[in-house]
Amino acid sequence: MDNPLPHVAPATSTDTAAAPPSGSVGLVKPQTIAFSEPLVLASGQTLPGYELAVETYGTLNASRTNAVLVCHALNASHHVAGINASDPRDIGWWDNMVGPGKAVDTDRFFVIGVNNLGSCFGSTGPASINPETGKPWGAGFPILTVEDWVQAQARLADYFGIERFAAVMGGSLGGMQALSWAITCPDRVANCVVIASTPRLSAQNIGFNEVARRAIISDPEFHGGDYYEHGVVPRRGLSVARMIGHITYLSDADMAAKFGRTQREPGADGSFHYGYGVEFEVESYLRYQGEKFSGYFDANTYLTFTRALDYFDPSRNHDGDLAKALEAVSARFLLVSFSTDWRFPPERTQEMVRALLKNKLPVTYAEIDAPHGHDAFLLGDKRYHAVVQGYYDQIARTLSLGARKTTTGVLA
Amino acid sequence: MDNPLPHVAPATSTDTAAAPPSGSVGLVKPQTIAFSEPLVLASGQTLPGYELAVETYGTLNASRTNAVLVCHALNASHHVAGINASDPRDIGWWDNMVGPGKAVDTDRFFVIGVNNLGSCFGSTGPASINPETGKPWGAGFPILTVEDWVQAQARLADYFGIERFAAVMGGSLGGMQALSWAITCPDRVANCVVIASTPRLSAQNIGFNEVARRAIISDPEFHGGDYYEHGVVPRRGLSVARMIGHITYLSDADMAAKFGRTQREPGADGSFHYGYGVEFEVESYLRYQGEKFSGYFDANTYLTFTRALDYFDPSRNHDGDLAKALEAVSARFLLVSFSTDWRFPPERTQEMVRALLKNKLPVTYAEIDAPHGHDAFLLGDKRYHAVVQGYYDQIARTLSLGARKTTTGVLA
Repeated sequence: MDNPLPHVAPATSTDTAAAPPSGSVGLVKPQTIAFSEPLVLASGQTLPGYELAVETYGTLNASRTNAVLVCHALNASHHVAGINASDPRDIGWWDNMVGPGKAVDTDRFFVIGVNNLGSCFGSTGPASINPETGKPWGAGFPILTVEDWVQAQARLADYFGIERFAAVMGGSLGGMQALSWAITCPDRVANCVVIASTPRLSAQNIGFNEVARRAIISDPEFHGGDYYEHGVVPRRGLSVARMIGHITYLSDADMAAKFGRTQREPGADGSFHYGYGVEFEVESYLRYQGEKFSGYFDANTYLTFTRALDYFDPSRNHDGDLAKALEAVSARFLLVSFSTDWRFPPERTQEMVRALLKNKLPVTYAEIDAPHGHDAFLLGDKRYHAVVQGYYDQIARTLSLGARKTTTGVLA
Repeated sequence: MDNPLPHVAPATSTDTAAAPPSGSVGLVKPQTIAFSEPLVLASGQTLPGYELAVETYGTLNASRTNAVLVCHALNASHHVAGINASDPRDIGWWDNMVGPGKAVDTDRFFVIGVNNLGSCFGSTGPASINPETGKPWGAGFPILTVEDWVQAQARLADYFGIERFAAVMGGSLGGMQALSWAITCPDRVANCVVIASTPRLSAQNIGFNEVARRAIISDPEFHGGDYYEHGVVPRRGLSVARMIGHITYLSDADMAAKFGRTQREPGADGSFHYGYGVEFEVESYLRYQGEKFSGYFDANTYLTFTRALDYFDPSRNHDGDLAKALEAVSARFLLVSFSTDWRFPPERTQEMVRALLKNKLPVTYAEIDAPHGHDAFLLGDKRYHAVVQGYYDQIARTLSLGARKTTTGVLA
């Protein structure tokens, strides 16, 4: 395949392990962009410069009107699409959505995946070195807000010379970020795509975040957030946090279909082992997810991100009136929710729809009847992808970006 | 008030702190009953004798036909009704349901509250002394099943000379136990009252249990279950376990109504503190619940009880066919579910209703449209209590136990 961006290495025919699937952007490499100007945060603290890890797919057109910013969810990164050039098993988290001929068509759009500030995947975060101390930030890393992320990323748009994004999009936490972009930088967002998200966390959402944080913070190996210098990691707490999170990403029905009450390795005649080892498939799955996650994710990042989620509430300075908070917004909106998502149920998206309509903004809203809970936003449901593809085709027409070159997409 | 049972001390006029509310059974004291015959458990292990803590209210009639056994939920005990004579602030967990003139009318019924085997509230459990070692059982305490509880309690019925209970009732875990009674001792249960329960845990239910257990077991102060001899308690893990549980007891809407996004002690102009301390009311509430629970509940009991829940599935030896599992049952049934209970939603109760009807058993079923989630079974919703009261009045008529003496109940 032909990719003009220097940091996106083309797939080679010798790389059989990584033969790109149809519609893939192929092998990709991240780039890191440094910003030296201090960033004043919502908390009042200042971050003395920072780096953002990004990946890009497709070509920025001469008028710089075809850029799409993709915002990631809690445990993801800038690696949105394609195959990690350093690890052929590492496929981008939204690879089914972004690529040539896909819903977000990289033949026509220039797509930027950006890693949030505070992450552990390349952008400046709690595990990065604090220039003032020469040691990892740890507990000293500032608390961040969704608005801080947007502010940091606005400089990224400047770096690419993008005045206005064709679209800012995201799912879950990324959807909140897309909404925040439309509110805080109304002139820079032509379209806002908010998927499986919410305008603010509910008490239940905050409750689950708090339990996850307690599990991490109360792990003796957390060391008040400065575990790096002790050479340990609060794996047990992080694992529990991830297990809790994982349950909330799946629907009850989906877990029933996937695991039910199936035993993992039953004894003779299907008997139980009568102990606290793995007895049921669902236990094995959750333990595995927790173990895996705690091996690569940074505990302080988990705290930072969940806290940013808790704090997000654009209606807060408008007496809780979301419509008022959206008065300055000028973007067109696509919002998608999923029927069995109990983390951010359709009602939360409908709040946004109502507030946008109250401001007479153009809104497309789809509720997809899917069994997969919150995780549905990452999956390839055809009706869901058809809605997104149709919306992006409309953007392409408005911007005269030409017709599709390939027909990989669900509408083909 | 007049209470003929020697172990139930009458309220006295000098005890002003504990003036019993209208319809209360008054001051109560538990009794402990020892069973010396070894108990062979489902796991194959044998418990060499055991004790059960019980409270009773009302009078067993001469024909011993008016006995009601109340089975408790995860964190409760035999202290079902009245005021603990040792602690006037300690009101029974189902005091709004059980008492003179209440739904379960102690003027007519002899009510037994029994503490489950494995508990930390008086019955033999992991913190009890293992007679073989002279030390607390700890990790050596056998794994229990719901059927083991029933077997242990059948000996309690023998002790009281009760051949057949007028009713066995319970909510949540207690409802599973009541169902198990009706299945395993069909001749001893005339009526079975199953509230906010399920015939078997879902994968999601097991998942939440497993996360809670991981939090406990991975706490370094758990010491493999033998923390007693180390003079410590895995409080952090137990606290996290309780916080998780607590979220699942409440509905999303109930948490929204109770806490919303209200800040605990906002800074000037309602500002955030930007940290990981308590920022929202819901965090304060959950932390408090976790802290309190970890101060009085035994971690090994938490493991024991959640595992018994996981294992319970009467359909297991009948190819998953619950109706087959209920073929020997002869009890009449009252089942109640609550619309916003997402832990054990109405669909789970309806499974039981269908299976009972398939066996042509008499079934009364009510789904109460209540906002309080799973916890609704503990609360005093009038429609709910009216259904239970009507059902018990019918039992009283069938058994010729006479009319109500007092009119405290919701149907008054």
